[in-house]
Amino acid sequence: MDVLGVLNLGDVAQTFSKIGMFPVFDLAYYIVSILYLKYEPGSVEVARKSPVASWLCAMLYCFASYILADVLLGGCPLDYFQYNSHILLASTIWYLIFFCPLNLFYKCVAFLPVKLVLVALKEVVRARKIAAGVHHAHHAYHNGFLIMVIIGYVKGSGVALISNFEQLLRGVWSPDSNEILNMSFPTKASLYGAILFTLQEAHLLPVSKSTLICLFTLFMATTKVILTARHSHGSPFVLIESWVCHLLFGSPLGGGEEEHHATPAPAPAPVAPVSPVKTKEELGDGTRKRKSKKAE
Amino acid sequence: MDVLGVLNLGDVAQTFSKIGMFPVFDLAYYIVSILYLKYEPGSVEVARKSPVASWLCAMLYCFASYILADVLLGGCPLDYFQYNSHILLASTIWYLIFFCPLNLFYKCVAFLPVKLVLVALKEVVRARKIAAGVHHAHHAYHNGFLIMVIIGYVKGSGVALISNFEQLLRGVWSPDSNEILNMSFPTKASLYGAILFTLQEAHLLPVSKSTLICLFTLFMATTKVILTARHSHGSPFVLIESWVCHLLFGSPLGGGEEEHHATPAPAPAPVAPVSPVKTKEELGDGTRKRKSKKAE
Amino acid sequence: MDVLGVLNLGDVAQTFSKIGMFPVFDLAYYIVSILYLKYEPGSVEVARKSPVASWLCAMLYCFASYILADVLLGGCPLDYFQYNSHILLASTIWYLIFFCPLNLFYKCVAFLPVKLVLVALKEVVRARKIAAGVHHAHHAYHNGFLIMVIIGYVKGSGVALISNFEQLLRGVWSPDSNEILNMSFPTKASLYGAILFTLQEAHLLPVSKSTLICLFTLFMATTKVILTARHSHGSPFVLIESWVCHLLFGSPLGGGEEEHHATPAPAPAPVAPVSPVKTKEELGDGTRKRKSKKAE
Repeated sequence: MDVLGVLNLGDVAQTFSKIGMFPVFDLAYYIVSILYLKYEPGSVEVARKSPVASWLCAMLYCFASYILADVLLGGCPLDYFQYNSHILLASTIWYLIFFCPLNLFYKCVAFLPVKLVLVALKEVVRARKIAAGVHHAHHAYHNGFLIMVIIGYVKGSGVALISNFEQLLRGVWSPDSNEILNMSFPTKASLYGAILFTLQEAHLLPVSKSTLICLFTLFMATTKVILTARHSHGSPFVLIESWVCHLLFGSPLGGGEEEHHATPAPAPAPVAPVSPVKTKEELGDGTRKRKSKKAE
Repeated sequence: MDVLGVLNLGDVAQTFSKIGMFPVFDLAYYIVSILYLKYEPGSVEVARKSPVASWLCAMLYCFASYILADVLLGGCPLDYFQYNSHILLASTIWYLIFFCPLNLFYKCVAFLPVKLVLVALKEVVRARKIAAGVHHAHHAYHNGFLIMVIIGYVKGSGVALISNFEQLLRGVWSPDSNEILNMSFPTKASLYGAILFTLQEAHLLPVSKSTLICLFTLFMATTKVILTARHSHGSPFVLIESWVCHLLFGSPLGGGEEEHHATPAPAPAPVAPVSPVKTKEELGDGTRKRKSKKAE
Repeated sequence: MDVLGVLNLGDVAQTFSKIGMFPVFDLAYYIVSILYLKYEPGSVEVARKSPVASWLCAMLYCFASYILADVLLGGCPLDYFQYNSHILLASTIWYLIFFCPLNLFYKCVAFLPVKLVLVALKEVVRARKIAAGVHHAHHAYHNGFLIMVIIGYVKGSGVALISNFEQLLRGVWSPDSNEILNMSFPTKASLYGAILFTLQEAHLLPVSKSTLICLFTLFMATTKVILTARHSHGSPFVLIESWVCHLLFGSPLGGGEEEHHATPAPAPAPVAPVSPVKTKEELGDGTRKRKSKKAE
């Protein structure tokens, strides 16, 4: 904390945590979210065939975190839809990304340097949402630590957690996987972030909330920007998770290999899968790649 | 409005909008709804094998609009089930339609002239429900125009919007389509009706609510009766939708062909689909037919 | 009631209905529930691959009844998660059952004599839950008899009612059956129990609540212990249900055969199924076996 004091990080964090999200950061959030909707196979056809379904999906991509948190806390799922300006902004982005003449808008925002900036801005919103979610749950349940974690998690992960049902809306059904079975980096980070913010809210973490928001935002933004720039779907948590899972759940220490990818296994593994766990992990790797896009 | 004044339509509308729905109109609503449940393939077997599941489906067909609206506004989904007389009436209808000796009741109400009257009466309930839904949402969110539209839409469409899950209850799963991807006429009309009633509630429509209810009921009842009499699954909105979609979303102007059906496309379209949009529309035509029954 | 008075059953029942459920009975409930999760095919792999998904499933197995009842009454679905000690206890059981070295804990609790005791204790909790559910619903809706039955039913059946979605969490999707289509014994008993408790709450049953709880618990515990000991998936209701369904729904009187199993049908029934109803029942018998495990 001394170093932070010297750098005056506390004040910076305080100022940073007071910046309003609307409209700039929210705009970036909507753009990146709906961009990932357009990446989904078949979404362009759905938009042309049934604009209502496509628009509804876009709204889920932008506001699922609010809807889910409201549902889980017993509130009104449509509550956030009273903010007409947010809805209008998100709808405009949806229209521009899907129906702009010459696909101009899409080409602009999908241009890598622009996209990297937007992705970084989006992570600012995510960090805030997690903190707000945990705070909100703390307000409702003072000692409901698990509830705080769940609400923070849900606020950070958003549509990814209900991707099965969002896909169903577009006529796609892939029940063999879901975001909880194969967590992508943003979902995992949201979970860990929610745990950190819950610990902070319970005064078990010797750091102020604004500092935590600031640090978490920095971590998320840099990691996501790097991952996006490298078109990678890895996760910086792989090594530590691998060890923790080994200690707690007796999983084999093969998690680290995922990153290096395709370091040839010593065993030839001819026809039948030798170790079912390994095979599942490899399989998970494939589906995770597809999934991780969505959760960004 | 002058013409309306001469015809004294205002007074008529006022009187009309004060008629209670229970029991006559509600009875017609339950009969037509459960009739469409019986039309669903396999529903008779389900009723014999698992009366509880069949009864639950029948309740969804009759009360899904209330359940959904309550869920979306954060209320108690079972709230409507406190009205024992409504439940009892709907349950009796369910019993009579599925288990009446000699299938007598079913044959009576499925007899076309009787059915046409019932269908017309059902539309009276639908119009009222939409208006009530919009009004209810307006009460909760004064400026939540989108919320009003959604609640009105949901109140008008009812079980059609959750048909995937209603089917799941009967052991059927067809994820490749849903009522939002392929809207049937009643669902579309409910959406447009909800928009009209929202505009009226926001004082953007120079017409009183009772007049709007009256006009919308007239439109719905006549259209549905004609469609039912002609066993048609078309929609009077096709032409205007086709133009609006062309202007807004760049869809090709082929929507009008749907009604004429099978006007041979000028291109031979040999193996692969030339225009994916056209193919999808044709495909949608087939599934819509199956669907539209349900939403009535 | 005279005999009861002689046996002083009233006092015994009164005392019995005052015993706290936490921690002994709840512990048994958690152990048996999570045991049945481990019986599900693939659940061990899920636990190793994605502990979060497995833990979430375990929580559903333990607390789905609370979640569902809260959802259906418009409350906060996460409400029960504020009881940290219950969550901690259930999580510990989950950890021990899935990850205990040498599978020791699992072997202990799955040992038949131990399991029978636990199963009996679990039924004590189930009976209490149904009574509490009906009472809670009665408090919210004084004349909502159907709501009382539904909430009691849901509190007694728990995760079985949402088994499709619990499976989805583990990447399994089996839409062709569900607990309402093919009710297992515990689910059916919960339904009948909920009806009895509702009648009691409406003062239509000349028996005190504590006596009813006591009698229902006795019935459930003995039946479940016998069924578990005999590895049977039958139901003591078969005969009476068969008659009631015959009278009410015109089902053929073949239900009684299910128990005797494979009493050769008089007709040879060579290739095609002669009576579709019979075939379905036989089919239901198979799936019910798979299902009934879960609902215990």
